[in-house]
Amino acid sequence: MKVVILPGDGIGPEVCETAVTVLRAACASSNIALDTEEHAFGGAAIDQYGDPLPPATLEACLGADAVLLGAVGGPRYDEAAKKGAPRPEAGLLALRREMGLFANLRPSRLFEGLEEASPLRKSVVADTDILVVRELTGGLYFGEREEGSDRALDRLPYSREEVERVARTAFEAARGRKGLLTSVDKANVLATSRLWRGVVEDVHKSYPDVRLEHVLVDAMAMHLVTHPSRFDVVVTENLFGDILSDELSAVVGSIGLAPSASLGEAGKPGLYEPIHGSAPDIAGLGIANPIGAILSAAMLLRHSAGEETAAASIEAAVAWCLADGLRTHDLGGSASTKDALDAVLSAL
Amino acid sequence: MKVVILPGDGIGPEVCETAVTVLRAACASSNIALDTEEHAFGGAAIDQYGDPLPPATLEACLGADAVLLGAVGGPRYDEAAKKGAPRPEAGLLALRREMGLFANLRPSRLFEGLEEASPLRKSVVADTDILVVRELTGGLYFGEREEGSDRALDRLPYSREEVERVARTAFEAARGRKGLLTSVDKANVLATSRLWRGVVEDVHKSYPDVRLEHVLVDAMAMHLVTHPSRFDVVVTENLFGDILSDELSAVVGSIGLAPSASLGEAGKPGLYEPIHGSAPDIAGLGIANPIGAILSAAMLLRHSAGEETAAASIEAAVAWCLADGLRTHDLGGSASTKDALDAVLSAL
Ligand SMILES: CC(C)[C@H](C(=O)O)[C@@H](O)C(=O)O
Ligand SMILES: CC(C)[C@H](C(=O)O)[C@@H](O)C(=O)O
Repeated sequence: MKVVILPGDGIGPEVCETAVTVLRAACASSNIALDTEEHAFGGAAIDQYGDPLPPATLEACLGADAVLLGAVGGPRYDEAAKKGAPRPEAGLLALRREMGLFANLRPSRLFEGLEEASPLRKSVVADTDILVVRELTGGLYFGEREEGSDRALDRLPYSREEVERVARTAFEAARGRKGLLTSVDKANVLATSRLWRGVVEDVHKSYPDVRLEHVLVDAMAMHLVTHPSRFDVVVTENLFGDILSDELSAVVGSIGLAPSASLGEAGKPGLYEPIHGSAPDIAGLGIANPIGAILSAAMLLRHSAGEETAAASIEAAVAWCLADGLRTHDLGGSASTKDALDAVLSAL
Repeated sequence: MKVVILPGDGIGPEVCETAVTVLRAACASSNIALDTEEHAFGGAAIDQYGDPLPPATLEACLGADAVLLGAVGGPRYDEAAKKGAPRPEAGLLALRREMGLFANLRPSRLFEGLEEASPLRKSVVADTDILVVRELTGGLYFGEREEGSDRALDRLPYSREEVERVARTAFEAARGRKGLLTSVDKANVLATSRLWRGVVEDVHKSYPDVRLEHVLVDAMAMHLVTHPSRFDVVVTENLFGDILSDELSAVVGSIGLAPSASLGEAGKPGLYEPIHGSAPDIAGLGIANPIGAILSAAMLLRHSAGEETAAASIEAAVAWCLADGLRTHDLGGSASTKDALDAVLSAL
């Protein structure tokens, strides 16, 4: 299996290296031949090549079985972008688009032992286990823009095909879980949300065994705080998915724990990354939580290598460590990135 | 003072009537002459006139000192809209636009005694007191749309003037509170967010005494759950404000408690409404929480009549009742709408 590694910026390299070490260990004990290749990406690639997604990086990603990414961005690049420099984030969006990664899976559940790390009361957050399926190559992220300092315009376009394929991914996922799909939109205002709702209902006809409900995005932002445990799979458009999955990750304890898989057509390479950002304030201190990245490596094994056993063994090792009291700084503890790595490796 | 009452749909009429009774009592004890006039609006106006904002209603609103609104919408109207009927929500958007209500103030704080009603731990939610200033007449709500069943498009436009005026409202509000303004955008992706950020920074030059910070919307959805008490005033564009203010209302206990004031140019009438919806599931049962509507009436006295003392007396009465244990169903209690009214009236 050939995996391209994109460390990126801030804490990206630290968490990526940690995840690769765990991936290597899991592959070794499952006799999976693993071949990794590191490439420049994001701000780091702007520094080196003036381009957040250099052609060689893109080519390597398209030719790999999977891509493991750390994080991109940082204040230095934000400042430079004001003067016309390219943005690290533009590299991420271009990569998602070029790889055709229309479905972004973001699972978040309350790990055993982490009840106290959640800002919510135990009685509210108990049993929360949600998979957010976020549409990733459409909507406001990819509509044509008009920049300007006196007026600006972003476009939010969606087509039937774009909604259909991500809806199918979500219904399939719900079928393999508790059988409830919550589709989130703003159909009382947006034309694209009305299209979204109609298409999701059409796709539902092929999944009569899955219960489907529609919830408005403002109400959903509320329900994730008041009743997170009543949901199973949530499907939504790109920006709503960005907002709601971050909120959800905080609800179950820390964004540092949340992995993601971005998938395209079957057989094409997937992209795996923790959902947290580059956290420039703690970069290089060796205290970043690597678990989101490690669990992303587990998703890589599941979705891009079909290695369910190896994937589940990483997930079980992480769950065991958390139940055993492993707490990085974001979880109110003092474990370092290295401590977390050692713990997961020995549990593995 | 001439106030137009728009009961609207679902629980709208119940909470509106309750709020008007409190408003009347507060006006009587402060010797404010109050003249009210009820008009058809939303789904109720569609039923009667086939139009969610009949011309007579709009004319009355434009000629009043203030407008008090219940709520609009419901599943019956959603169904009819699929077959081409007008939407109640379209009436609300048209009213906001016609009245020029560009600044929507949505305060949410943790009331004393309600620590247990919040889904968050007491230690996390304690001292939360946030004013969301939501831009209300621009963005995705008012961009031109292209409807379609195979493709659709919503437009998100913003102009410098639109951002400037709502930013000024927010800086003024922060100056009168703790002096911290958090501007929320998605500047790493959206052109309108980059415009937003630049204009807010320009306006900041006139308010050097206010601390300004920029937070991305996905991070903000997280911070409202993890550190709600560190914020003071939050300013953001229309749809982000819709999502974040609902989330916040849940954080401090219940959306049933949250009032709002929608303001335009100085001297023009304001619109006051609870931020909750029409809650068709409990409409007519007499159990809706009227406090969001009652506190909206208090905001009306403050912002449209300059009657700070009368406004504060309603707010103090509500706070007293909540501290005294008044709990409607949404707060886990069994008090009816009428019980809440009686309690507030006697506290007043
Ligand atoms: C970095 C940014 C462009 C990105 C996004 O908004 O998609 C990030 O927030 C994410 O969720 O992966
Ligand atoms: C009813 C709906 C159009 C409205 C909005 O989205 O603005 C509501 O959610 C609100 O927040 O006032």
